[in-house]
Amino acid sequence: MSEYIAPLKDMQFVLRELADMDAVSALPGHEEVNAELADAILEEAGKFANGVLSPLNWTGDREGAKWKDGEVTTAPGWKQAYSQFVDGGWNALSCPTEFGGQGLPHIISAMVEEMWNASNTSFMLCPMLTRGAIEALQLCGSDEQKAMYLPKMVTGEWTGSMNLTEPQAGSDLAAVRTKAIPQADGSFRIHGQKIFITYGEHDLTDNIIHLVLARTPNAPEGVKGISLFVVPKFIVNADGSLGERNDVRCVSIEHKLGIHASPTCVLAFGDNAGATGWLVGEENRGLEYMFIMMNAARYGVGLQGIGLCDRATQRAAEYARTRVQGVEQGGKSRDKVAIVRHPDVRRMLMQMKSRTEALRAVAGVTAAAMDLAHGHPDTDVRKAQQAFVDLMIPIVKGWSTETALLVTSLGVQVHGGMGFIEETGAAQHMRDARITAIYEGTTGIQAADLIGRKIARDGGATIGAVIAQMEAVRAELAAADDAQLAAIGASLEAGIAALKSGVAFILAHQGEAIRQAAAGAVPLMELFGIVAGGWQMGRAALVARRQLKAGEGDGAFLKAKLLTARFYADHVLSAAPGLAHTVLHGADAALEMADEAF
Amino acid sequence: MSEYIAPLKDMQFVLRELADMDAVSALPGHEEVNAELADAILEEAGKFANGVLSPLNWTGDREGAKWKDGEVTTAPGWKQAYSQFVDGGWNALSCPTEFGGQGLPHIISAMVEEMWNASNTSFMLCPMLTRGAIEALQLCGSDEQKAMYLPKMVTGEWTGSMNLTEPQAGSDLAAVRTKAIPQADGSFRIHGQKIFITYGEHDLTDNIIHLVLARTPNAPEGVKGISLFVVPKFIVNADGSLGERNDVRCVSIEHKLGIHASPTCVLAFGDNAGATGWLVGEENRGLEYMFIMMNAARYGVGLQGIGLCDRATQRAAEYARTRVQGVEQGGKSRDKVAIVRHPDVRRMLMQMKSRTEALRAVAGVTAAAMDLAHGHPDTDVRKAQQAFVDLMIPIVKGWSTETALLVTSLGVQVHGGMGFIEETGAAQHMRDARITAIYEGTTGIQAADLIGRKIARDGGATIGAVIAQMEAVRAELAAADDAQLAAIGASLEAGIAALKSGVAFILAHQGEAIRQAAAGAVPLMELFGIVAGGWQMGRAALVARRQLKAGEGDGAFLKAKLLTARFYADHVLSAAPGLAHTVLHGADAALEMADEAF
Repeated sequence: MSEYIAPLKDMQFVLRELADMDAVSALPGHEEVNAELADAILEEAGKFANGVLSPLNWTGDREGAKWKDGEVTTAPGWKQAYSQFVDGGWNALSCPTEFGGQGLPHIISAMVEEMWNASNTSFMLCPMLTRGAIEALQLCGSDEQKAMYLPKMVTGEWTGSMNLTEPQAGSDLAAVRTKAIPQADGSFRIHGQKIFITYGEHDLTDNIIHLVLARTPNAPEGVKGISLFVVPKFIVNADGSLGERNDVRCVSIEHKLGIHASPTCVLAFGDNAGATGWLVGEENRGLEYMFIMMNAARYGVGLQGIGLCDRATQRAAEYARTRVQGVEQGGKSRDKVAIVRHPDVRRMLMQMKSRTEALRAVAGVTAAAMDLAHGHPDTDVRKAQQAFVDLMIPIVKGWSTETALLVTSLGVQVHGGMGFIEETGAAQHMRDARITAIYEGTTGIQAADLIGRKIARDGGATIGAVIAQMEAVRAELAAADDAQLAAIGASLEAGIAALKSGVAFILAHQGEAIRQAAAGAVPLMELFGIVAGGWQMGRAALVARRQLKAGEGDGAFLKAKLLTARFYADHVLSAAPGLAHTVLHGADAALEMADEAF
Repeated sequence: MSEYIAPLKDMQFVLRELADMDAVSALPGHEEVNAELADAILEEAGKFANGVLSPLNWTGDREGAKWKDGEVTTAPGWKQAYSQFVDGGWNALSCPTEFGGQGLPHIISAMVEEMWNASNTSFMLCPMLTRGAIEALQLCGSDEQKAMYLPKMVTGEWTGSMNLTEPQAGSDLAAVRTKAIPQADGSFRIHGQKIFITYGEHDLTDNIIHLVLARTPNAPEGVKGISLFVVPKFIVNADGSLGERNDVRCVSIEHKLGIHASPTCVLAFGDNAGATGWLVGEENRGLEYMFIMMNAARYGVGLQGIGLCDRATQRAAEYARTRVQGVEQGGKSRDKVAIVRHPDVRRMLMQMKSRTEALRAVAGVTAAAMDLAHGHPDTDVRKAQQAFVDLMIPIVKGWSTETALLVTSLGVQVHGGMGFIEETGAAQHMRDARITAIYEGTTGIQAADLIGRKIARDGGATIGAVIAQMEAVRAELAAADDAQLAAIGASLEAGIAALKSGVAFILAHQGEAIRQAAAGAVPLMELFGIVAGGWQMGRAALVARRQLKAGEGDGAFLKAKLLTARFYADHVLSAAPGLAHTVLHGADAALEMADEAF
């Protein structure tokens, strides 16, 4: 069975050539960050992903996490791998230095996280959720709370969980019913049931710090009456030691399509006296706090999609190079060949590869913007970069995960009948990928965020600025006097025109005719995604051509990059005009249908 | 948990309005076939699918078929359901009357099979494989073989299995190595291992009639040296009673992504003295015989795709109508609504519904052509209809199953987080659907068949005739002076133009530049599929508009049909020009890539 190999060359290409590593290195506090450091970290992370996490991925799927009497046992090997992960300092990579983290920029940590996701998505969910909880406490917690929880969460000695969903409150968190009753000592008693809680219970660490959305007794209805509470599994004593077991129990874990080794828990808070919790930040601002963190969490899920795409592609390519079947079409020899020689298998592999690289480039550019938005000395730059990040998050999340559904399914297809056999491993990637388009906001939620808060709210200003950058790349491709680049430029031109018409439709309809816009939201998101990918693949092609002409860089890699960009233009980007048609003309039929006629 | 309801109205619409039931009724031997008979059969089949097969679908998935010491135990309830199926005469529906079948036309049996597939794909595979074996014996067997095996296979007292694949011989059957050594008594001793044998072993019946591809000692290499043998699990005595157990054993069954209740067997033939088999038809013509039956088998798998699409759509629509979450966008009320009111959920449901109905219409029209090709008194009509059938088979198989991957995945998405929980049932449809694009010839194999044997071989004559029919529908839509029909016509026009350019490219490249054509084969297949769907949905829209104007038929159904056709035009058919671009421009990058660079 193939193990994951980190795609170091492509990551380094994205870092150096597309994501403006130099600008990030120039930021205050990132003085030691440079390409060599990045290379060293990526290489070490690649070894860990290959040697420790990847070999556990399939056994984790087969064995899964087990529930018994309220306790959850993780899959075989999980505890040891988690210790190694924590001991290696990997949990703290992007965490703030003041609490013991390494404070590395997003452009590096994102690449590393892609590796964890690619090699073992189920494992990665634990540090990912912990980081979400760390950010919540860091942004909104009191100094006392930070001192009590953060150092051990940053090292990974304790993990965190995010408790939002309830049976009646999924995408609509306004419907949260869990109650928080104030006590004389300033704490709260929490009562309620939370579902779909990732790593809500496990045996990896001594304590789990639950962050819980709940309502105080006289809180307003709806979204403005929800508060955030910290509810540790074991109460932490003043001296930092563990005290009493809190009144929170894992009632069951779910039997899921994928990510079997990641326990998805039903947590009962306060079945007895009430779970003891403490308010984080101000009352009734819990949902607002959640939304602050949402960008990071959504970006993280986008990286899951990218990692799974890469893993599926690697596995399929390896199989295609070794599975012998049939003779070469158009050749004279009757010798049997590896299926990688068959044009349709090549087409599938290129679909997988080109989409994966486009996703990685878009996510990489977005990560660099996060770093600039956070650390650039110029306020205007920070503001512009943040606007770009906000615009791109629903793309990195929504488009990457939808693409992962397609790419992991193609990965099964390349394997033929063997792809349907679980032991082959290709099917697991498809099953694991399926959740990424659902959790942390479904694709529909991402698209609604995109057209509402990210495009319409500023009247299309931010996306207009991005389109202007795309136009510049298109012009450069056209001016290059190169047939390959010109063809890419022509597809990008059609893609940009399609995107413009789609955005104009959304801007014209987002007010009065909001249902018209909403029906086109997901097609527009896909349209924006593939054109953004075309933009970055166009940039990559320009770099590759320039370096090839200058005799710089890795020739084989650069030639492949050019062909991959060309393939993307003609197989992926070419769908843009059709999607624009859907956005502009496709709403009425869906909206007019009688509910009972579906 | 929702149970399957047969889509009788849409099936009746396809039969009456699109598939020319009257022409089939007019065929010799089909005098009693009419719309009322069809209605009665569909209604009864619908009850069986709903009441018997559908309730076993999820338990079958969970429990699966079990292997122990060479014996396979089917899932709980399977034996009883199989008895009821056989007792009800359902196994014999499309089987020839001379061996006890009912000889119903394909337009009816196809609709019934869609129901079996929708309600329980794993169950349906058993009769489907048996029918394949029946056809092989009927077409190529001796009179003695027919008399010995067919009556009991037609009733379902015995089942059949098809033994083609070996570890090194999947898509490439030329690589079959199983040996058949002639004996003095005219029988053969069979030695070899077959894999992926559906219902190769089970506990439903007393005997299983295996049809096996193998090579005789001095057979030529490659495809022209393969013969077909009948190898019963128990040797049948001259008086019809069961004799000795044959030397064929089920070594194991596969652990698969889906269709868990359908045992996928590894069969060892001749581990001891050799399994006793008898030649079917002439030596060295086995593969040719298999290809005769392949059309029916591929059509049958296409129906699996359609059935799974319908099942997933029904489940998602029911969930969407009952799951309450969020408020209505663009409305004034703050009341929570069912998610079917959300525009993006409607878009997903319409994607599912419109694609399912388009697939059903295309398959229905193809079934009618099968009946005419088989039974029409005029040779020229038979020939033209057979050419149409041959052209459409890779579409019904390839496009329907690829669409099923998309539609069943959307079915999960509509359910949000619940879709990822296995108990919900949506994920099973997605898992079950995944194999349909692989077995009986992968999508790549279908597309190669389409562009080679079905398009290029007759210089585009048959597809040209189909395109002319599409043009006529487009003209009728344009001439109707109706905005809805005009919009459908405009998308169809763009689709037809795209299809023409794609076909022209294939015809120009299928010879010398065959690898160029091959790299575009799957995109062309998808292009042809969606345009064929647009053609049939255009016809359906014309009928619906005419009947609505005349005040005929079921108004609600017809209005929904019009909206569904319109949606299809703007969300599915609208992708055609982009696919044509891919066919025309997309080959080089895939072909030029270095094998090691994927």
